[in-house]
Amino acid sequence: MSNKNFGFGTQIRKSPYFESTVKWGATGFSVYNHMYIPRDFGSPEQNFWNLIEKAILCDVAVERQVEITGRDAYKFTQLLTPRDLSKLAVGQCKYVLITNNEGGILNDPVLLRLAENHFWLSLADSDVLLWAQGVAVNSGLDVQIKEPDVSPLQLQGPTSGEIMIKLFGDDIKDLKYYWLKEYNLDGIPLIVSRTGWSSELGYEIYLRDGTKGNELYEKIMEAGKEYDLKPGHTSSIRRIEGGMLSYHADADINTNPFELGFDRLVNLDNDNNFIGKEALKKIKDKGIIRKQVGLEIDCKPLSGPNTTFWELKKNNMNIGKVTSAVYSPRLKKNIALAMVSVEQSKIGNEFQVTTNEGTFDCIVVEKPFYDPKKKIVSS
Amino acid sequence: MSNKNFGFGTQIRKSPYFESTVKWGATGFSVYNHMYIPRDFGSPEQNFWNLIEKAILCDVAVERQVEITGRDAYKFTQLLTPRDLSKLAVGQCKYVLITNNEGGILNDPVLLRLAENHFWLSLADSDVLLWAQGVAVNSGLDVQIKEPDVSPLQLQGPTSGEIMIKLFGDDIKDLKYYWLKEYNLDGIPLIVSRTGWSSELGYEIYLRDGTKGNELYEKIMEAGKEYDLKPGHTSSIRRIEGGMLSYHADADINTNPFELGFDRLVNLDNDNNFIGKEALKKIKDKGIIRKQVGLEIDCKPLSGPNTTFWELKKNNMNIGKVTSAVYSPRLKKNIALAMVSVEQSKIGNEFQVTTNEGTFDCIVVEKPFYDPKKKIVSS
Repeated sequence: MSNKNFGFGTQIRKSPYFESTVKWGATGFSVYNHMYIPRDFGSPEQNFWNLIEKAILCDVAVERQVEITGRDAYKFTQLLTPRDLSKLAVGQCKYVLITNNEGGILNDPVLLRLAENHFWLSLADSDVLLWAQGVAVNSGLDVQIKEPDVSPLQLQGPTSGEIMIKLFGDDIKDLKYYWLKEYNLDGIPLIVSRTGWSSELGYEIYLRDGTKGNELYEKIMEAGKEYDLKPGHTSSIRRIEGGMLSYHADADINTNPFELGFDRLVNLDNDNNFIGKEALKKIKDKGIIRKQVGLEIDCKPLSGPNTTFWELKKNNMNIGKVTSAVYSPRLKKNIALAMVSVEQSKIGNEFQVTTNEGTFDCIVVEKPFYDPKKKIVSS
Repeated sequence: MSNKNFGFGTQIRKSPYFESTVKWGATGFSVYNHMYIPRDFGSPEQNFWNLIEKAILCDVAVERQVEITGRDAYKFTQLLTPRDLSKLAVGQCKYVLITNNEGGILNDPVLLRLAENHFWLSLADSDVLLWAQGVAVNSGLDVQIKEPDVSPLQLQGPTSGEIMIKLFGDDIKDLKYYWLKEYNLDGIPLIVSRTGWSSELGYEIYLRDGTKGNELYEKIMEAGKEYDLKPGHTSSIRRIEGGMLSYHADADINTNPFELGFDRLVNLDNDNNFIGKEALKKIKDKGIIRKQVGLEIDCKPLSGPNTTFWELKKNNMNIGKVTSAVYSPRLKKNIALAMVSVEQSKIGNEFQVTTNEGTFDCIVVEKPFYDPKKKIVSS
């Protein structure tokens, strides 16, 4: 692959870090939010060990931001999510769901509050920019909604803290889990948050000047040299171990928050006005009919993630589907997230899954599969 | 590539035609509307000749549909586009722009009217489903908006008419340019329209049952055997020759219709209420500052489409960018669509373009580059 000629045209954007990621060994790219994302630096298993033992730097510029500003920015942002934002301080982040009028999930971004009326939604893969602009049309609220020139990196893993101190000084130690801070690194404007998609200690570094992507990437790789920092990509193994959601795989517009066990992200008992409130009240009252569960699959180690939804059957009846499956080399088990009928969702329940290799037994287990109290990431 | 294991997970969908396209030689895929699209069946130049001399079958299931129904469906659909829909008959299609409140283009779908209050927007690459649902929230209109189980194919090229007669009978001859008809092909439910993305005679065949994708694909390939039908993909060469738009490449949320010369798609002189009307009036009154032009580039044949936006300079001043460029083996010229400052947009104007290979002269020419009166496609 010649990096200058990579791609089918200009229809899919390249990240500001594109040249650096190719230089550091990226050989395969996927597409996310209309932009290429590096997804292959060799062995996914080695990438996993790099992440959990030392640290990896991941180009996640595809996490595009929706910026909401204006006099009514707070009120409008609250309108977009069932989570109560009344205690979200300036400088704080929250994991939120964006729901439509039927309570279906449109995205699961991290929300950052940069100022009283200045918010970013750091997106999973869907055009929430269009959703938010559409909602604003007849809302009567005074807001501006745009995609700013912001491109995140994820620095994740146990040595990420030391690398951050080397880059930003001791002061970064005070940054708590799900808080953010503004920095300027040798003239490169940044926001840094203690968030990520790995369930490991980690940071997201939001570049605010797309012309400086490769410069920033190289600077971080250089600072990380003595801490065994490796170029990498978000780890499907680690995020499934952590029970973290991949939008379009584990949830889509037809999934509601309660099916995912995300009751804590839906606050119905206050005066907040948000889209989907009536629908979600009804769903809650009526009860869900499907539920996300963790599974262990009894077969030889899977060679990679499932690339189709695998059917689940009990007594030859379809009872659901595996949404994300992978072999965890640490747990030495095939683990999966699945959406099953609620009657089949109890821990210990057994049924059958049909993969590309055949039909195998599986059993419902607790999730997250590793570090269920999330001690690693929040300490 | 093993087709069963293709992909990085379930986050990107496979088309209902996926297995067939791999069987018929697809070796490279891009991503569009969260779904894989085959973009490589060997030489793009051969694919171009196949298209203009005989016919090709293209999997464009990625053209997802936004279905609008309900008592106020017509009124709501008119709200989404600056084009006047008052003369759009049931059974007719129109090429439309979807604009936001600032007059920026969000998509350029084909609109199909299936019934009085039943519309499909056959999308380019952006989540207009979210836009439309967002607009509906506070609209006070009685509409349902969803993505139905519909997956189009494009059958395009001079022999496509004969293939269609073989499949659907003589009655298909009556289908006029930009009209649609409902069919059932041996139990496969379809809508057929005389539209496409090739500027050649062609049809779009909208499958309404995703379980029957491979069956339909094979049926069409079989019928096309005697007419030299080849598996293929939409041709960048032909669509650039035809001056057709690729969203995200030639236009984006910051592009307005007048910059593209799409005045005929913006009807400001009536009582229609649509999003962006005030903004577009202002832009029209004030005049545009950029304009899309056709260019010929004076260098050796380009080896493929540009994968970055190429800078245009005159007297060392930046005056715009090439958005889509390709070598046309028929015209024996490098042709391009570009967005330039309006002062530089006159036919015959010359300036410089910097490609991956160096800096070359280019000249503004008429577009479309081939068949400017669109006689081929509409006859």
